Amino acid sequence: MNQVGRDFPRLEVRAKVTGRAEYTHHLRLPGMLYGKVFRSTVPHGRILHIDTEAARKLPGVHRVITGEDIKKLIPEPYYGPAFHDQPILALEKVRHVGEPVAVVLASDPHVAEQGVQLISAEYEELPAVYDEVQAMKPDILVHEVLKPAGTFADLKHLKDRGGTNVALDYHLRRGDVDGALAKADHVIEHTFKTQQCLHVAFEPFVSVADPGDSKLTIYTANQSPSFVRIEIARLFGWPENRVRVKVPYVGGGFGGKLYIKLEALVAALAMLVRRPVKIALTMEEQFYVITKHPTTFRIKSGVTKDGRIIARSCEVHWNGGAYADIGPRVAQKSGFTAAGPYDIDNVSVDSYEMYTNRTPAGALRCFGIPQLVWAYESHTDLIAREIGMDPVEFRHKNLLRNGRPQASGTILKDAAIPEVFQALVKRMNWDAPFDRGAGILRRGRGIAIALKAVISPTTSVAVINISADGSITLFTGSVDMGQGSDTAYALIVGEVLGVPAEDVRVVHSDTDVTPYDMGTLGSRSFYHMGNAVRLAAEDARGKLRALATEAGLPEGTNYPPVEIFKKRYGMQAGNVIGTATFLPTYSPPDAQGLSSNVTPFWMVGGAGAEVEVDTETGHVRVLRLVNAADCGKPINPAVARTQLSGAAIMQLGFTLSEAMHLDGGQVTNASLADYKIPGMADIPPIECELVTAEQHNGPFGAKGLGESGTFGVSPAIANAIHDAVGVRIMELPITAEAVLRALRAKEGRPLDDE
Amino acid sequence: MNQVGRDFPRLEVRAKVTGRAEYTHHLRLPGMLYGKVFRSTVPHGRILHIDTEAARKLPGVHRVITGEDIKKLIPEPYYGPAFHDQPILALEKVRHVGEPVAVVLASDPHVAEQGVQLISAEYEELPAVYDEVQAMKPDILVHEVLKPAGTFADLKHLKDRGGTNVALDYHLRRGDVDGALAKADHVIEHTFKTQQCLHVAFEPFVSVADPGDSKLTIYTANQSPSFVRIEIARLFGWPENRVRVKVPYVGGGFGGKLYIKLEALVAALAMLVRRPVKIALTMEEQFYVITKHPTTFRIKSGVTKDGRIIARSCEVHWNGGAYADIGPRVAQKSGFTAAGPYDIDNVSVDSYEMYTNRTPAGALRCFGIPQLVWAYESHTDLIAREIGMDPVEFRHKNLLRNGRPQASGTILKDAAIPEVFQALVKRMNWDAPFDRGAGILRRGRGIAIALKAVISPTTSVAVINISADGSITLFTGSVDMGQGSDTAYALIVGEVLGVPAEDVRVVHSDTDVTPYDMGTLGSRSFYHMGNAVRLAAEDARGKLRALATEAGLPEGTNYPPVEIFKKRYGMQAGNVIGTATFLPTYSPPDAQGLSSNVTPFWMVGGAGAEVEVDTETGHVRVLRLVNAADCGKPINPAVARTQLSGAAIMQLGFTLSEAMHLDGGQVTNASLADYKIPGMADIPPIECELVTAEQHNGPFGAKGLGESGTFGVSPAIANAIHDAVGVRIMELPITAEAVLRALRAKEGRPLDDE
Repeated sequence: MNQVGRDFPRLEVRAKVTGRAEYTHHLRLPGMLYGKVFRSTVPHGRILHIDTEAARKLPGVHRVITGEDIKKLIPEPYYGPAFHDQPILALEKVRHVGEPVAVVLASDPHVAEQGVQLISAEYEELPAVYDEVQAMKPDILVHEVLKPAGTFADLKHLKDRGGTNVALDYHLRRGDVDGALAKADHVIEHTFKTQQCLHVAFEPFVSVADPGDSKLTIYTANQSPSFVRIEIARLFGWPENRVRVKVPYVGGGFGGKLYIKLEALVAALAMLVRRPVKIALTMEEQFYVITKHPTTFRIKSGVTKDGRIIARSCEVHWNGGAYADIGPRVAQKSGFTAAGPYDIDNVSVDSYEMYTNRTPAGALRCFGIPQLVWAYESHTDLIAREIGMDPVEFRHKNLLRNGRPQASGTILKDAAIPEVFQALVKRMNWDAPFDRGAGILRRGRGIAIALKAVISPTTSVAVINISADGSITLFTGSVDMGQGSDTAYALIVGEVLGVPAEDVRVVHSDTDVTPYDMGTLGSRSFYHMGNAVRLAAEDARGKLRALATEAGLPEGTNYPPVEIFKKRYGMQAGNVIGTATFLPTYSPPDAQGLSSNVTPFWMVGGAGAEVEVDTETGHVRVLRLVNAADCGKPINPAVARTQLSGAAIMQLGFTLSEAMHLDGGQVTNASLADYKIPGMADIPPIECELVTAEQHNGPFGAKGLGESGTFGVSPAIANAIHDAVGVRIMELPITAEAVLRALRAKEGRPLDDE
Repeated sequence: MNQVGRDFPRLEVRAKVTGRAEYTHHLRLPGMLYGKVFRSTVPHGRILHIDTEAARKLPGVHRVITGEDIKKLIPEPYYGPAFHDQPILALEKVRHVGEPVAVVLASDPHVAEQGVQLISAEYEELPAVYDEVQAMKPDILVHEVLKPAGTFADLKHLKDRGGTNVALDYHLRRGDVDGALAKADHVIEHTFKTQQCLHVAFEPFVSVADPGDSKLTIYTANQSPSFVRIEIARLFGWPENRVRVKVPYVGGGFGGKLYIKLEALVAALAMLVRRPVKIALTMEEQFYVITKHPTTFRIKSGVTKDGRIIARSCEVHWNGGAYADIGPRVAQKSGFTAAGPYDIDNVSVDSYEMYTNRTPAGALRCFGIPQLVWAYESHTDLIAREIGMDPVEFRHKNLLRNGRPQASGTILKDAAIPEVFQALVKRMNWDAPFDRGAGILRRGRGIAIALKAVISPTTSVAVINISADGSITLFTGSVDMGQGSDTAYALIVGEVLGVPAEDVRVVHSDTDVTPYDMGTLGSRSFYHMGNAVRLAAEDARGKLRALATEAGLPEGTNYPPVEIFKKRYGMQAGNVIGTATFLPTYSPPDAQGLSSNVTPFWMVGGAGAEVEVDTETGHVRVLRLVNAADCGKPINPAVARTQLSGAAIMQLGFTLSEAMHLDGGQVTNASLADYKIPGMADIPPIECELVTAEQHNGPFGAKGLGESGTFGVSPAIANAIHDAVGVRIMELPITAEAVLRALRAKEGRPLDDE
């Protein structure tokens, strides 16, 4: 019975294509009220007065709730995974445009929306800061004092720190960077920037809370139900088992639906009015919830004349917006790979998570890695140009290899960096002649490669129940948002227990039912939960064997489970229950940011791009996108390939078009009409290559893959544009306008408005 | 932390009294159809034609389904726990009045009901048999051939047996009954009868089936969800994990909601029409689903002149109605205690489960025991009278004591027979003067005691999840129908894990979530599941300790769980999952019906009654009812007492008023207006005494108690009537008419119609 390694359609595909799959948006409970949110119109201000009188009087409005009402229920109504900084509804201050200030509740959502229109608020406007580097100056303070959550021991020292917008500063020091730079033949420095953009899951944020009798149930489109349960219980001062978090099908997450989004709000509202409450956001409102960090990355390298990088210093400022969310972890966990997949003896990293008066930023498919790769792989290309080396040859010379220490000091293991790079180069036919175009249409090609660690240490628990007829149910808290995790686990269970994966029933995330899981994020699930599932299946297998022995069946013979159960229990009765908890080993970084074991596995991904640039308009057409990643031994190759292509398409949007535009703190393009995500016509031919290696501690040799397809896309395209037309774009997105401006500047005839 | 043994309010009490508790009757699913049942009007007949044309044409009717439609979906659509004899809808024959013949489906239940009125059926009427003794003659056959389910190995030999209405015959032979009878000073024989009556749970039968995408979900008021899952899977030829059975709150069961009732029907309908289907019966329809066995019990005893019973032969005919349901188990499992709680060396038992053309009979709060006790404790009293001994003294002399073999040969253990009897006698002030009334109102008193075994072998599985903050969730398939099982288990978990029971969350029966349990029946749950819960809690406690060791916390110190989890997992994360399966030891009976280990525990219960009889009308007023039972060490004494009083009230109805009246196979009193259950005004002062003993293999020394309160009620009242007015009633119920007839007959002036 070979289950693992075969192309297998996703288990839920039928339910989804026939429209039977249930999403939180479908849910209506008896007596349910709809909440609509009144939001701040100023980026930074002290709340003087909220006038809810007219809304309250509107026929059909059940109640209008402000932050002060919530405070009566929850004295400290602040939440967040890293800092308890985010109020359920604004209190005293508002810190970004779109921040929730009040909620109107009504049985009819249209009435609630009308009620919102009748609310007005008066603010004492305060000066605001939007830029992550400017925010280093403490003249404008987004938060007066820092309130670390206590979740992460390493943030505790920040408690009560004030007078700063630095939510977290992470520093790594390896070797002697200054000394090495002094000795280098070339010292090359650049600054790159990325924009604010967002997840755009096609299912907008939605949560429902049912106050129940002695238990609060939350139905929500969320990637981390266990976290929601713990955090809601903490807010109310309850035990975990008084909160139930159920996650129906989720229509995409990409890190946006992590931690608390609407859950604390609907929970507080439901407890206040003692009726079920639903809040479902519009597409426009998504621009005010959570985004991808804008960054400024100053990178400096010292290189020998034969092309060895001997020193690199990195300074990254992360624009976390008004509330920290998981931003501090992004700044820190991505921080230590900021120097890239290269073997460099002297590295320094300074990474700063900054508060600003923007929509908060959190995790978005890679925990900050694409921002770093954008910078270091553009930089790598520029170094190769400067020292006159082929960029492929230059990378080859410097690539980090297994057995060598990564910047953190952890010895690299099971990371197929050279193999992935080799696959890319081969697919790109790097050494073959390349048609460079002619006339106004010029062609170029670029390449990029990157490395990512997984967030650590985190825990996953799995439970497997074998029924008396041998049929199997798996309980896992992983949230399948479309990535195929249910199917992958079913394949693992099938492999261990010798049954077809399609016969394994996977029970969806429900904290009353499925055991703890840290969250479905950062490509951790398949490795962590996959291992837990494998171990739980092995536990169940062992217990089934023990049952056969108890039943007096001779060892070594293979009895169908139904026979074992019948023999032991006198009828078709009983269960075997296998359980396992998986926590990989890990060493926390020391004061220098160094660790001997910083991640249980490494992700490796790279991209190659061929582009055509219209030198008259600046328009960039991607002719071909090649994506390669180390997936260990793939469990379900068909789905693994779609993970790579999906990631590439997503990053393509962030590369060429997506950007939230801000004007005085106001988002000026908060709609999908103005914020351009890739359409079918924008998508080039994408080739995905699974580079098969072996992740020795992974389940059946596999590893996480949900993000690796994003890594190299942006710099590969920028490098290809440079190759085509000789201009370097230093900031995302690479719009036609940006390219045209660069072309004109290079020609010495800047566009009129410059 | 002493949890076990304290008076503890039931966990769900608040939800129930505030009306928040959700029952299956409340459930409405999108697109749901209501089914209404067209039923047979003849007791026995061959189906010639079912005319559904007019019903089909009724606007609003979605579809009309007959047995033939179901056969297209399920080729062998017969179900049942002991025999696969019951068709989902009648096929070829109908076997009792009220048997489901067709179902009308409509979005509006009133339209469906109207549709039912438009259906007509034509039958070739067959002669019918209603009496359990007459059914021994094979001239009228209810079933042409027997189809044992295979669930119980000991029924397999019945396969393909035909030409009989005997569904099961059970025989026990111990010692030499004939020889002992020949030597006895007195040989006394009586025949007692009981009536057909029913459970009357205040929540009528209701089930909903949702065909889902790749899984069928059944929401049902049912006491045995694991059985339903297995049986529905068998009918469709599916694995167990394709069927999900969810049991919301249940409004009383009493054995009526065991096994399959409406579940197969709604499942088949939902699969046929691919929409959710609900069937909710009216109170009247309950008379056609499941009842308590009418019985005829011929009992003969040989007694020495000094009052020792040396031989007893018992012949019991059980009227199982048209379909076996669990009747064969009633006939067999109750059979071996038919001789009562007495120490008798020579015993024979012949117990016959009979098919007749009545509504089927199954389990009703005691699996047949009250029918037996009615006979043997009336008989015991009559013997004492005949030999001129005080009935208390006579019983004392013959009571079975621990260490002595019960009729089955199993040595009695942990059965507090003398203690319960002593407690009763004391409460009744048996030796004190007693006011015997005067004039037309005469008073008397009676006593009765009985023994019951538990159905065996059966299995229960429990799972316990400790969250990272130490809060606890228990997963159990026991169905809490009001008996307080959730609360009892919470007390056990609290005791083992050192937390208040009110903090333990109990997850309700849901076969996708809660592990296997054989069923909530026959007072088995507290013993079996209670043991499983205790073992699972101990497993969890051990794993929590192991986790503390893994976390490097020194042994022997008591850390709060949240500290252990935080230390081990770096944050508030993870779970500990404890599991246990409980299956007591058991020896199946041999060819003589004997076994060295026939039950893991014994139930002992008795009653004393003081009555006043109006000799002019025959009206019996119960002045006082004393109930005593061996409850081991009670886990929750307050709830244990309500179990005893509830059982006594139920049996009071069966004793004095409840009876289904049949006329040519038609039930003539199928409504609660004509079928009289006890009202508040009918209930005498009831004293309940928990006789504390110790069930050594029970959870914390406790045992099941849900039935013991019924045992002695009927004969204690009959004995008291005899004591008051000198007449003996041989058949239940003891109506005023029956008493008056007996009084008149005794006076030689029978009522006019006799």
